[in-house]
Amino acid sequence: MIRTETEIRVRYAETDAMGFAHHGTYITWFELARIEMLDQLSLPYKQLEEEGYYLPVLNVSATYKKPAYFDDRLRVVCYVRSQPGLRIQIEYDVYRDELLLAQGSSSHAFINKDGQPIRPPKHYLETFKKAMGA
Amino acid sequence: MIRTETEIRVRYAETDAMGFAHHGTYITWFELARIEMLDQLSLPYKQLEEEGYYLPVLNVSATYKKPAYFDDRLRVVCYVRSQPGLRIQIEYDVYRDELLLAQGSSSHAFINKDGQPIRPPKHYLETFKKAMGA
Amino acid sequence: MIRTETEIRVRYAETDAMGFAHHGTYITWFELARIEMLDQLSLPYKQLEEEGYYLPVLNVSATYKKPAYFDDRLRVVCYVRSQPGLRIQIEYDVYRDELLLAQGSSSHAFINKDGQPIRPPKHYLETFKKAMGA
Amino acid sequence: MIRTETEIRVRYAETDAMGFAHHGTYITWFELARIEMLDQLSLPYKQLEEEGYYLPVLNVSATYKKPAYFDDRLRVVCYVRSQPGLRIQIEYDVYRDELLLAQGSSSHAFINKDGQPIRPPKHYLETFKKAMGA
Repeated sequence: MIRTETEIRVRYAETDAMGFAHHGTYITWFELARIEMLDQLSLPYKQLEEEGYYLPVLNVSATYKKPAYFDDRLRVVCYVRSQPGLRIQIEYDVYRDELLLAQGSSSHAFINKDGQPIRPPKHYLETFKKAMGA
Repeated sequence: MIRTETEIRVRYAETDAMGFAHHGTYITWFELARIEMLDQLSLPYKQLEEEGYYLPVLNVSATYKKPAYFDDRLRVVCYVRSQPGLRIQIEYDVYRDELLLAQGSSSHAFINKDGQPIRPPKHYLETFKKAMGA
Repeated sequence: MIRTETEIRVRYAETDAMGFAHHGTYITWFELARIEMLDQLSLPYKQLEEEGYYLPVLNVSATYKKPAYFDDRLRVVCYVRSQPGLRIQIEYDVYRDELLLAQGSSSHAFINKDGQPIRPPKHYLETFKKAMGA
Repeated sequence: MIRTETEIRVRYAETDAMGFAHHGTYITWFELARIEMLDQLSLPYKQLEEEGYYLPVLNVSATYKKPAYFDDRLRVVCYVRSQPGLRIQIEYDVYRDELLLAQGSSSHAFINKDGQPIRPPKHYLETFKKAMGA
Protein backbone atom coordinates (compact mmCIF):
# COMPACT_ATOMS: atom_id res chain seq x y z
CA MET A 1 0.00 0.00 0.00
CA ILE A 2 1.07 3.57 -0.68
CA ARG A 3 0.16 6.18 1.92
CA THR A 4 1.06 9.86 1.69
CA GLU A 5 -0.09 12.99 3.49
CA THR A 6 -0.83 16.53 2.35
CA GLU A 7 -1.42 19.62 4.47
CA ILE A 8 -4.35 21.85 3.47
CA ARG A 9 -5.36 25.18 4.95
CA VAL A 10 -9.00 26.11 4.34
CA ARG A 11 -9.26 29.27 2.23
CA TYR A 12 -11.92 31.90 2.86
CA ALA A 13 -13.03 31.58 -0.77
CA GLU A 14 -13.64 27.86 -0.12
CA THR A 15 -16.28 28.49 2.56
CA ASP A 16 -19.94 29.09 1.79
CA ALA A 17 -22.89 30.77 3.48
CA MET A 18 -23.41 27.75 5.79
CA GLY A 19 -20.19 28.96 7.42
CA PHE A 20 -17.96 26.03 6.52
CA ALA A 21 -16.06 24.67 3.53
CA HIS A 22 -18.26 23.99 0.49
CA HIS A 23 -18.58 20.26 -0.25
CA GLY A 24 -17.26 20.76 -3.79
CA THR A 25 -13.95 22.01 -2.42
CA TYR A 26 -13.03 18.58 -1.10
CA ILE A 27 -12.87 17.32 -4.70
CA THR A 28 -10.14 19.91 -5.36
CA TRP A 29 -8.37 18.92 -2.13
CA PHE A 30 -8.34 15.29 -3.27
CA GLU A 31 -6.70 16.52 -6.49
CA LEU A 32 -4.02 18.39 -4.53
CA ALA A 33 -3.41 15.32 -2.38
CA ARG A 34 -2.93 12.96 -5.32
CA ILE A 35 -0.63 15.44 -7.07
CA GLU A 36 1.51 15.54 -3.93
CA MET A 37 1.41 11.75 -3.75
CA LEU A 38 2.80 11.60 -7.31
CA ASP A 39 5.49 14.13 -6.28
CA GLN A 40 6.49 11.94 -3.37
CA LEU A 41 6.81 9.00 -5.77
CA SER A 42 9.03 11.19 -8.00
CA LEU A 43 6.35 11.02 -10.71
CA PRO A 44 5.28 14.67 -10.89
CA TYR A 45 2.02 15.05 -12.80
CA LYS A 46 3.31 18.04 -14.77
CA GLN A 47 6.10 15.86 -16.19
CA LEU A 48 3.61 13.12 -17.04
CA GLU A 49 1.63 15.64 -19.13
CA GLU A 50 4.85 16.82 -20.78
CA GLU A 51 5.45 13.21 -21.84
CA GLY A 52 2.01 13.23 -23.48
CA TYR A 53 -0.02 11.39 -20.84
CA TYR A 54 -3.09 12.69 -19.04
CA LEU A 55 -4.89 11.23 -16.04
CA PRO A 56 -8.50 12.44 -16.18
CA VAL A 57 -10.94 11.46 -13.45
CA LEU A 58 -13.30 8.59 -14.29
CA ASN A 59 -15.22 8.85 -11.07
CA VAL A 60 -15.04 10.53 -7.74
CA SER A 61 -16.98 10.26 -4.50
CA ALA A 62 -16.94 11.93 -1.12
CA THR A 63 -18.66 11.30 2.20
CA TYR A 64 -18.91 14.19 4.68
CA LYS A 65 -18.93 13.53 8.42
CA LYS A 66 -17.97 16.83 10.08
CA PRO A 67 -17.60 20.36 8.68
CA ALA A 68 -14.24 22.07 8.04
CA TYR A 69 -13.99 25.78 8.84
CA PHE A 70 -12.05 28.72 7.46
CA ASP A 71 -8.38 28.55 8.41
CA ASP A 72 -8.54 24.95 9.59
CA ARG A 73 -5.33 23.06 8.96
CA LEU A 74 -6.36 19.75 7.48
CA ARG A 75 -4.45 16.60 6.67
CA VAL A 76 -5.49 14.72 3.54
CA VAL A 77 -4.22 11.16 3.66
CA CYS A 78 -4.01 9.48 0.27
CA TYR A 79 -3.97 5.69 -0.24
CA VAL A 80 -3.28 3.41 -3.20
CA ARG A 81 -4.19 -0.10 -2.14
CA SER A 82 -3.88 -2.04 -5.41
CA GLN A 83 -1.23 -1.94 -8.12
CA PRO A 84 -2.26 0.53 -10.88
CA GLY A 85 -2.59 -0.86 -14.41
CA LEU A 86 -4.71 0.83 -17.06
CA ARG A 87 -6.46 2.49 -14.14
CA ILE A 88 -5.46 3.98 -10.81
CA GLN A 89 -7.72 3.84 -7.78
CA ILE A 90 -7.04 6.30 -4.95
CA GLU A 91 -8.69 6.80 -1.56
CA TYR A 92 -8.68 9.85 0.67
CA ASP A 93 -9.20 10.58 4.36
CA VAL A 94 -9.50 14.21 5.50
CA TYR A 95 -8.54 14.91 9.12
CA ARG A 96 -8.47 17.92 11.43
CA ASP A 97 -6.07 16.74 14.11
CA GLU A 98 -7.32 13.24 14.88
CA LEU A 99 -10.92 13.89 13.83
CA LEU A 100 -11.94 12.30 10.53
CA LEU A 101 -13.97 14.93 8.61
CA ALA A 102 -14.49 13.25 5.25
CA GLN A 103 -13.53 10.29 3.11
CA GLY A 104 -13.40 9.89 -0.63
CA SER A 105 -12.12 8.00 -3.63
CA SER A 106 -11.28 8.61 -7.25
CA SER A 107 -10.32 6.48 -10.22
CA HIS A 108 -8.31 7.54 -13.25
CA ALA A 109 -7.32 6.26 -16.68
CA PHE A 110 -4.36 7.22 -18.83
CA ILE A 111 -5.19 9.00 -22.08
CA ASN A 112 -3.07 10.70 -24.75
CA LYS A 113 -3.43 14.25 -26.12
CA ASP A 114 -6.19 13.12 -28.45
CA GLY A 115 -8.20 11.72 -25.56
CA GLN A 116 -7.52 8.06 -26.51
CA PRO A 117 -6.92 5.53 -23.69
CA ILE A 118 -3.31 4.38 -23.60
CA ARG A 119 -1.08 2.17 -21.48
CA PRO A 120 0.79 4.13 -18.80
CA PRO A 121 4.57 4.59 -19.21
CA LYS A 122 6.47 1.50 -18.06
CA HIS A 123 8.61 3.34 -15.49
CA TYR A 124 5.38 4.67 -14.00
CA LEU A 125 4.00 1.23 -13.24
CA GLU A 126 7.37 0.06 -11.97
CA THR A 127 7.66 2.97 -9.59
CA PHE A 128 4.21 2.21 -8.22
CA LYS A 129 5.08 -1.47 -7.92
CA LYS A 130 8.20 -0.70 -5.89
CA ALA A 131 6.36 1.76 -3.70
CA MET A 132 3.52 -0.72 -3.10
CA GLY A 133 6.02 -3.31 -1.92
CA ALA A 134 7.81 -0.88 0.36
CA MET B 1 -40.51 9.70 -9.29
CA ILE B 2 -39.63 13.36 -9.61
CA ARG B 3 -37.73 14.43 -12.71
CA THR B 4 -36.68 18.01 -13.47
CA GLU B 5 -34.27 19.61 -15.92
CA THR B 6 -31.78 22.46 -15.65
CA GLU B 7 -29.87 24.20 -18.44
CA ILE B 8 -26.18 24.86 -17.83
CA ARG B 9 -23.74 26.76 -20.03
CA VAL B 10 -20.09 25.88 -19.41
CA ARG B 11 -18.16 28.91 -18.15
CA TYR B 12 -14.59 29.62 -19.24
CA ALA B 13 -13.53 29.70 -15.58
CA GLU B 14 -14.89 26.14 -15.23
CA THR B 15 -12.47 24.69 -17.80
CA ASP B 16 -8.95 23.57 -16.97
CA ALA B 17 -5.68 23.07 -18.83
CA MET B 18 -6.89 19.73 -20.26
CA GLY B 19 -9.19 21.94 -22.36
CA PHE B 20 -12.50 20.84 -20.89
CA ALA B 21 -14.63 21.38 -17.79
CA HIS B 22 -12.85 20.48 -14.53
CA HIS B 23 -14.38 17.40 -12.87
CA GLY B 24 -15.04 19.35 -9.67
CA THR B 25 -17.38 21.69 -11.53
CA TYR B 26 -19.98 18.97 -11.99
CA ILE B 27 -20.48 18.90 -8.22
CA THR B 28 -21.51 22.56 -8.41
CA TRP B 29 -23.76 21.83 -11.41
CA PHE B 30 -25.51 19.11 -9.40
CA GLU B 31 -26.10 21.74 -6.70
CA LEU B 32 -27.63 24.13 -9.24
CA ALA B 33 -29.82 21.35 -10.60
CA ARG B 34 -31.20 20.36 -7.20
CA ILE B 35 -31.85 24.00 -6.29
CA GLU B 36 -33.86 24.36 -9.49
CA MET B 37 -35.67 21.11 -8.71
CA LEU B 38 -36.70 22.55 -5.34
CA ASP B 39 -37.86 25.73 -7.15
CA GLN B 40 -39.99 23.68 -9.48
CA LEU B 41 -41.58 21.98 -6.45
CA SER B 42 -42.25 25.49 -4.98
CA LEU B 43 -39.84 24.67 -2.14
CA PRO B 44 -37.08 27.23 -2.81
CA TYR B 45 -33.96 26.40 -0.84
CA LYS B 46 -33.45 30.02 0.22
CA GLN B 47 -36.84 29.96 1.95
CA LEU B 48 -36.00 26.64 3.63
CA GLU B 49 -32.91 28.27 5.15
CA GLU B 50 -34.98 31.27 6.24
CA GLU B 51 -37.21 28.82 8.12
CA GLY B 52 -34.11 27.53 9.93
CA TYR B 53 -33.46 24.34 7.97
CA TYR B 54 -30.27 23.46 6.13
CA LEU B 55 -29.64 20.61 3.72
CA PRO B 56 -25.92 19.86 3.79
CA VAL B 57 -24.47 17.16 1.57
CA LEU B 58 -23.80 13.80 3.25
CA ASN B 59 -22.23 12.27 0.21
CA VAL B 60 -21.77 12.94 -3.46
CA SER B 61 -20.45 10.93 -6.37
CA ALA B 62 -19.88 11.51 -10.08
CA THR B 63 -18.92 9.30 -13.01
CA TYR B 64 -17.44 10.97 -16.09
CA LYS B 65 -17.99 9.47 -19.55
CA LYS B 66 -17.31 12.28 -22.04
CA PRO B 67 -15.80 15.75 -21.59
CA ALA B 68 -17.81 19.00 -21.63
CA TYR B 69 -16.24 21.98 -23.35
CA PHE B 70 -16.36 25.74 -22.88
CA ASP B 71 -19.67 27.20 -24.01
CA ASP B 72 -21.42 23.82 -24.22
CA ARG B 73 -25.08 24.01 -23.38
CA LEU B 74 -25.75 21.10 -21.04
CA ARG B 75 -28.89 19.65 -19.59
CA VAL B 76 -28.72 18.36 -16.02
CA VAL B 77 -31.60 15.98 -15.33
CA CYS B 78 -32.39 15.54 -11.66
CA TYR B 79 -34.26 12.53 -10.21
CA VAL B 80 -35.79 11.72 -6.85
CA ARG B 81 -36.81 8.06 -6.93
CA SER B 82 -37.81 7.42 -3.32
CA GLN B 83 -39.86 9.50 -0.90
CA PRO B 84 -37.57 11.70 1.24
CA GLY B 85 -37.73 11.24 5.01
CA LEU B 86 -34.89 12.28 7.27
CA ARG B 87 -32.76 12.09 4.15
CA ILE B 88 -33.10 13.00 0.50
CA GLN B 89 -31.41 11.00 -2.23
CA ILE B 90 -30.99 12.68 -5.63
CA GLU B 91 -29.55 11.43 -8.91
CA TYR B 92 -28.19 13.42 -11.83
CA ASP B 93 -27.61 12.86 -15.55
CA VAL B 94 -25.65 15.43 -17.52
CA TYR B 95 -26.35 15.60 -21.26
CA ARG B 96 -25.07 17.56 -24.24
CA ASP B 97 -27.94 17.12 -26.70
CA GLU B 98 -28.62 13.38 -26.50
CA LEU B 99 -25.11 12.40 -25.39
CA LEU B 100 -24.80 11.38 -21.74
CA LEU B 101 -21.61 13.04 -20.40
CA ALA B 102 -21.78 12.24 -16.71
CA GLN B 103 -23.92 10.77 -13.95
CA GLY B 104 -23.99 11.45 -10.27
CA SER B 105 -25.83 11.24 -6.99
CA SER B 106 -26.01 13.07 -3.70
CA SER B 107 -27.70 12.52 -0.36
CA HIS B 108 -28.70 15.14 2.17
CA ALA B 109 -29.95 15.41 5.73
CA PHE B 110 -31.91 18.21 7.37
CA ILE B 111 -30.10 20.09 10.13
CA ASN B 112 -30.89 23.23 12.13
CA LYS B 113 -28.75 26.34 12.59
CA ASP B 114 -26.76 24.61 15.32
CA GLY B 115 -25.89 21.73 13.03
CA GLN B 116 -28.22 19.27 14.79
CA PRO B 117 -30.17 16.76 12.66
CA ILE B 118 -33.90 17.55 12.61
CA ARG B 119 -37.09 16.30 10.96
CA PRO B 120 -37.88 18.20 7.77
CA PRO B 121 -40.91 20.56 7.79
CA LYS B 122 -44.17 18.64 7.29
CA HIS B 123 -45.27 20.60 4.23
CA TYR B 124 -41.92 19.74 2.68
CA LEU B 125 -42.48 16.00 2.89
CA GLU B 126 -46.08 16.37 1.73
CA THR B 127 -45.04 18.35 -1.33
CA PHE B 128 -42.53 15.68 -2.22
CA LYS B 129 -45.14 12.96 -1.68
CA LYS B 130 -47.58 14.64 -4.02
CA ALA B 131 -44.91 15.25 -6.63
CA MET B 132 -43.71 11.62 -6.38
CA GLY B 133 -47.20 10.39 -7.10
CA ALA B 134 -47.70 12.73 -10.06
CA MET C 1 -21.45 52.90 -27.22
CA ILE C 2 -22.35 49.22 -26.91
CA ARG C 3 -24.52 48.18 -23.97
CA THR C 4 -25.69 44.65 -23.29
CA GLU C 5 -27.22 42.89 -20.31
CA THR C 6 -26.71 39.47 -18.74
CA GLU C 7 -28.77 37.76 -16.06
CA ILE C 8 -26.88 36.07 -13.23
CA ARG C 9 -28.27 33.96 -10.40
CA VAL C 10 -25.99 33.75 -7.37
CA ARG C 11 -24.89 30.14 -6.77
CA TYR C 12 -24.52 28.70 -3.28
CA ALA C 13 -20.92 27.75 -4.09
CA GLU C 14 -20.25 31.44 -4.85
CA THR C 15 -21.08 32.59 -1.33
CA ASP C 16 -18.60 32.60 1.54
CA ALA C 17 -18.71 32.50 5.32
CA MET C 18 -19.58 36.23 5.49
CA GLY C 19 -22.95 35.08 4.10
CA PHE C 20 -22.77 36.79 0.72
CA ALA C 21 -21.11 36.31 -2.66
CA HIS C 22 -17.30 36.17 -2.49
CA HIS C 23 -15.69 39.22 -4.09
CA GLY C 24 -13.68 37.04 -6.48
CA THR C 25 -16.88 35.72 -8.03
CA TYR C 26 -17.67 39.07 -9.62
CA ILE C 27 -14.59 38.66 -11.80
CA THR C 28 -16.15 35.49 -13.22
CA TRP C 29 -19.51 37.27 -13.65
CA PHE C 30 -17.76 40.00 -15.67
CA GLU C 31 -16.37 37.22 -17.88
CA LEU C 32 -19.85 35.75 -18.39
CA ALA C 33 -21.20 39.21 -19.21
CA ARG C 34 -18.57 39.96 -21.86
CA ILE C 35 -19.00 36.52 -23.43
CA GLU C 36 -22.73 37.22 -23.73
CA MET C 37 -21.95 40.68 -25.16
CA LEU C 38 -19.82 39.01 -27.86
CA ASP C 39 -22.72 36.59 -28.52
CA GLN C 40 -25.10 39.49 -28.96
CA LEU C 41 -22.68 41.03 -31.48
CA SER C 42 -22.61 37.66 -33.32
CA LEU C 43 -18.93 37.31 -32.41
CA PRO C 44 -19.03 34.26 -30.12
CA TYR C 45 -15.79 33.90 -28.20
CA LYS C 46 -15.61 30.16 -28.85
CA GLN C 47 -15.50 30.85 -32.60
CA LEU C 48 -12.82 33.50 -32.11
CA GLU C 49 -10.64 30.86 -30.39
CA GLU C 50 -11.36 28.38 -33.18
CA GLU C 51 -10.00 31.01 -35.61
CA GLY C 52 -6.79 31.12 -33.54
CA TYR C 53 -7.38 34.30 -31.56
CA TYR C 54 -7.42 34.58 -27.77
CA LEU C 55 -8.49 37.53 -25.64
CA PRO C 56 -6.67 37.24 -22.30
CA VAL C 57 -7.28 39.80 -19.56
CA LEU C 58 -4.65 42.53 -19.22
CA ASN C 59 -6.23 44.06 -16.19
CA VAL C 60 -9.41 43.90 -14.19
CA SER C 61 -10.86 45.94 -11.36
CA ALA C 62 -13.99 45.84 -9.23
CA THR C 63 -15.55 48.15 -6.67
CA TYR C 64 -18.05 46.68 -4.21
CA LYS C 65 -20.88 48.81 -2.83
CA LYS C 66 -23.49 46.36 -1.53
CA PRO C 67 -23.40 42.59 -0.97
CA ALA C 68 -25.14 40.05 -3.23
CA TYR C 69 -26.77 37.05 -1.54
CA PHE C 70 -27.40 33.44 -2.49
CA ASP C 71 -30.16 33.12 -5.08
CA ASP C 72 -30.18 36.84 -5.94
CA ARG C 73 -31.03 37.49 -9.57
CA LEU C 74 -28.51 40.05 -10.75
CA ARG C 75 -28.18 42.02 -13.94
CA VAL C 76 -24.66 42.63 -15.24
CA VAL C 77 -24.65 45.55 -17.68
CA CYS C 78 -21.67 45.57 -20.01
CA TYR C 79 -20.41 48.70 -21.82
CA VAL C 80 -17.88 49.33 -24.59
CA ARG C 81 -17.41 53.09 -24.85
CA SER C 82 -14.51 53.37 -27.28
CA GLN C 83 -13.84 51.53 -30.55
CA PRO C 84 -11.61 48.49 -29.90
CA GLY C 85 -8.28 48.36 -31.76
CA LEU C 86 -5.39 46.24 -30.52
CA ARG C 87 -7.14 46.38 -27.17
CA ILE C 88 -10.71 46.21 -25.91
CA GLN C 89 -11.86 48.10 -22.84
CA ILE C 90 -15.08 46.95 -21.15
CA GLU C 91 -17.00 48.28 -18.16
CA TYR C 92 -19.49 46.50 -15.94
CA ASP C 93 -22.33 47.48 -13.61
CA VAL C 94 -23.91 44.83 -11.39
CA TYR C 95 -27.50 45.47 -10.29
CA ARG C 96 -30.09 43.76 -8.11
CA ASP C 97 -33.29 45.32 -9.36
CA GLU C 98 -32.41 49.03 -9.47
CA LEU C 99 -29.74 48.85 -6.76
CA LEU C 100 -26.15 49.14 -8.03
CA LEU C 101 -24.09 46.51 -6.14
CA ALA C 102 -20.73 46.74 -7.89
CA GLN C 103 -18.85 48.24 -10.80
CA GLY C 104 -15.85 47.03 -12.70
CA SER C 105 -13.73 47.17 -15.80
CA SER C 106 -11.42 44.95 -17.81
CA SER C 107 -9.09 45.38 -20.73
CA HIS C 108 -7.99 42.75 -23.21
CA ALA C 109 -5.50 42.24 -26.02
CA PHE C 110 -5.63 39.81 -28.93
CA ILE C 111 -2.97 37.09 -28.94
CA ASN C 112 -2.40 33.99 -31.09
CA LYS C 113 -1.92 30.39 -29.94
CA ASP C 114 1.74 31.07 -29.20
CA GLY C 115 0.87 33.97 -26.93
CA GLN C 116 2.07 36.63 -29.38
CA PRO C 117 0.07 39.89 -29.66
CA ILE C 118 -1.74 40.10 -33.01
CA ARG C 119 -4.17 42.40 -34.79
CA PRO C 120 -7.78 41.33 -34.30
CA PRO C 121 -9.64 39.88 -37.31
CA LYS C 122 -10.92 42.65 -39.62
CA HIS C 123 -14.57 41.58 -39.45
CA TYR C 124 -14.30 41.76 -35.68
CA LEU C 125 -13.37 45.42 -35.65
CA GLU C 126 -15.97 46.22 -38.31
CA THR C 127 -18.72 44.56 -36.31
CA PHE C 128 -17.73 46.58 -33.25
CA LYS C 129 -17.62 49.76 -35.36
CA LYS C 130 -21.15 49.20 -36.65
CA ALA C 131 -22.45 48.34 -33.18
CA MET C 132 -20.77 51.43 -31.69
CA GLY C 133 -22.54 53.64 -34.20
CA ALA C 134 -25.92 52.03 -33.63
CA MET D 1 6.11 49.88 5.21
CA ILE D 2 5.03 46.31 5.87
CA ARG D 3 6.21 43.65 3.45
CA THR D 4 5.42 39.94 3.75
CA GLU D 5 5.68 36.98 1.40
CA THR D 6 3.45 34.00 0.72
CA GLU D 7 4.22 30.88 -1.29
CA ILE D 8 1.54 29.69 -3.73
CA ARG D 9 1.52 26.54 -5.85
CA VAL D 10 -0.78 26.73 -8.87
CA ARG D 11 -3.57 24.14 -8.61
CA TYR D 12 -4.83 22.24 -11.66
CA ALA D 13 -8.36 23.45 -10.90
CA GLU D 14 -7.06 27.02 -11.12
CA THR D 15 -6.01 26.70 -14.77
CA ASP D 16 -8.36 27.22 -17.69
CA ALA D 17 -8.56 26.12 -21.32
CA MET D 18 -5.97 28.76 -22.36
CA GLY D 19 -3.54 26.47 -20.51
CA PHE D 20 -2.62 28.84 -17.67
CA ALA D 21 -4.06 30.11 -14.40
CA HIS D 22 -7.45 31.84 -14.78
CA HIS D 23 -7.22 35.57 -14.11
CA GLY D 24 -9.89 35.34 -11.40
CA THR D 25 -7.65 33.04 -9.36
CA TYR D 26 -5.20 35.84 -8.60
CA ILE D 27 -7.93 37.57 -6.59
CA THR D 28 -8.05 34.51 -4.33
CA TRP D 29 -4.24 34.44 -4.12
CA PHE D 30 -4.26 38.07 -2.98
CA GLU D 31 -6.69 37.00 -0.25
CA LEU D 32 -4.37 34.18 0.86
CA ALA D 33 -1.43 36.59 0.88
CA ARG D 34 -3.16 39.18 3.06
CA ILE D 35 -4.39 36.50 5.47
CA GLU D 36 -0.78 35.33 5.85
CA MET D 37 0.34 38.93 6.29
CA LEU D 38 -2.13 39.27 9.18
CA ASP D 39 -0.79 36.00 10.62
CA GLN D 40 2.75 37.34 10.49
CA LEU D 41 1.57 40.45 12.37
CA SER D 42 -0.02 38.13 14.99
CA LEU D 43 -3.45 39.46 13.96
CA PRO D 44 -5.01 36.29 12.51
CA TYR D 45 -8.13 37.11 10.51
CA LYS D 46 -10.09 34.25 12.06
CA GLN D 47 -9.60 35.79 15.50
CA LEU D 48 -10.65 39.21 14.18
CA GLU D 49 -13.94 37.69 13.03
CA GLU D 50 -14.36 35.97 16.40
CA GLU D 51 -14.08 39.42 18.01
CA GLY D 52 -16.94 40.60 15.76
CA TYR D 53 -14.99 42.44 13.08
CA TYR D 54 -15.07 41.72 9.35
CA LEU D 55 -12.82 43.10 6.63
CA PRO D 56 -14.78 42.93 3.36
CA VAL D 57 -13.17 44.06 0.12
CA LEU D 58 -14.12 47.56 -1.07
CA ASN D 59 -12.20 47.29 -4.28
CA VAL D 60 -9.67 45.10 -5.96
CA SER D 61 -7.59 45.36 -9.11
CA ALA D 62 -5.07 43.20 -10.92
CA THR D 63 -2.75 43.71 -13.88
CA TYR D 64 -1.47 40.64 -15.70
CA LYS D 65 1.95 40.65 -17.37
CA LYS D 66 2.91 37.00 -17.84
CA PRO D 67 0.93 33.78 -17.44
CA ALA D 68 1.31 31.36 -14.51
CA TYR D 69 1.13 27.65 -15.27
CA PHE D 70 -0.04 24.56 -13.40
CA ASP D 71 2.35 23.57 -10.63
CA ASP D 72 4.28 26.87 -10.74
CA ARG D 73 5.58 27.90 -7.35
CA LEU D 74 4.74 31.57 -7.01
CA ARG D 75 5.65 34.18 -4.45
CA VAL D 76 3.00 36.76 -3.59
CA VAL D 77 4.58 39.80 -1.97
CA CYS D 78 2.18 41.88 0.06
CA TYR D 79 2.74 45.56 0.95
CA VAL D 80 1.06 48.01 3.30
CA ARG D 81 2.54 51.43 2.58
CA SER D 82 0.35 53.71 4.68
CA GLN D 83 -0.92 53.34 8.24
CA PRO D 84 -4.42 51.75 8.23
CA GLY D 85 -7.25 53.75 9.81
CA LEU D 86 -10.86 53.11 8.95
CA ARG D 87 -9.51 51.51 5.80
CA ILE D 88 -6.60 49.29 4.87
CA GLN D 89 -4.88 49.53 1.50
CA ILE D 90 -2.78 46.55 0.38
CA GLU D 91 -0.66 45.97 -2.71
CA TYR D 92 0.47 42.70 -4.24
CA ASP D 93 3.26 41.54 -6.55
CA VAL D 94 3.17 38.00 -7.91
CA TYR D 95 6.52 36.48 -8.90
CA ARG D 96 7.75 33.21 -10.39
CA ASP D 97 11.41 33.25 -9.36
CA GLU D 98 12.48 36.80 -10.25
CA LEU D 99 9.88 37.30 -13.00
CA LEU D 100 7.01 39.63 -12.09
CA LEU D 101 3.81 37.99 -13.38
CA ALA D 102 1.11 40.26 -11.99
CA GLN D 103 0.43 43.17 -9.67
CA GLY D 104 -2.65 44.12 -7.74
CA SER D 105 -4.21 46.07 -4.93
CA SER D 106 -7.17 45.86 -2.60
CA SER D 107 -8.78 48.11 -0.04
CA HIS D 108 -10.85 47.06 2.94
CA ALA D 109 -13.07 48.58 5.62
CA PHE D 110 -13.96 47.23 9.04
CA ILE D 111 -17.61 46.29 9.55
CA ASN D 112 -19.49 44.54 12.35
CA LYS D 113 -21.77 41.49 12.11
CA ASP D 114 -24.65 43.69 10.98
CA GLY D 115 -22.61 45.09 8.10
CA GLN D 116 -22.18 48.52 9.73
CA PRO D 117 -18.81 50.30 9.34
CA ILE D 118 -16.91 50.45 12.63
CA ARG D 119 -13.55 51.59 13.95
CA PRO D 120 -10.96 48.79 14.01
CA PRO D 121 -9.87 47.42 17.41
CA LYS D 122 -7.23 49.67 19.01
CA HIS D 123 -4.61 46.94 19.37
CA TYR D 124 -5.02 46.28 15.66
CA LEU D 125 -4.02 49.79 14.66
CA GLU D 126 -1.19 49.81 17.20
CA THR D 127 0.22 46.57 15.86
CA PHE D 128 0.17 47.98 12.34
CA LYS D 129 1.79 51.20 13.55
CA LYS D 130 4.65 49.33 15.20
CA ALA D 131 5.12 47.09 12.17
CA MET D 132 5.10 50.10 9.84
CA GLY D 133 7.86 51.69 11.85
CA ALA D 134 9.98 48.56 11.94
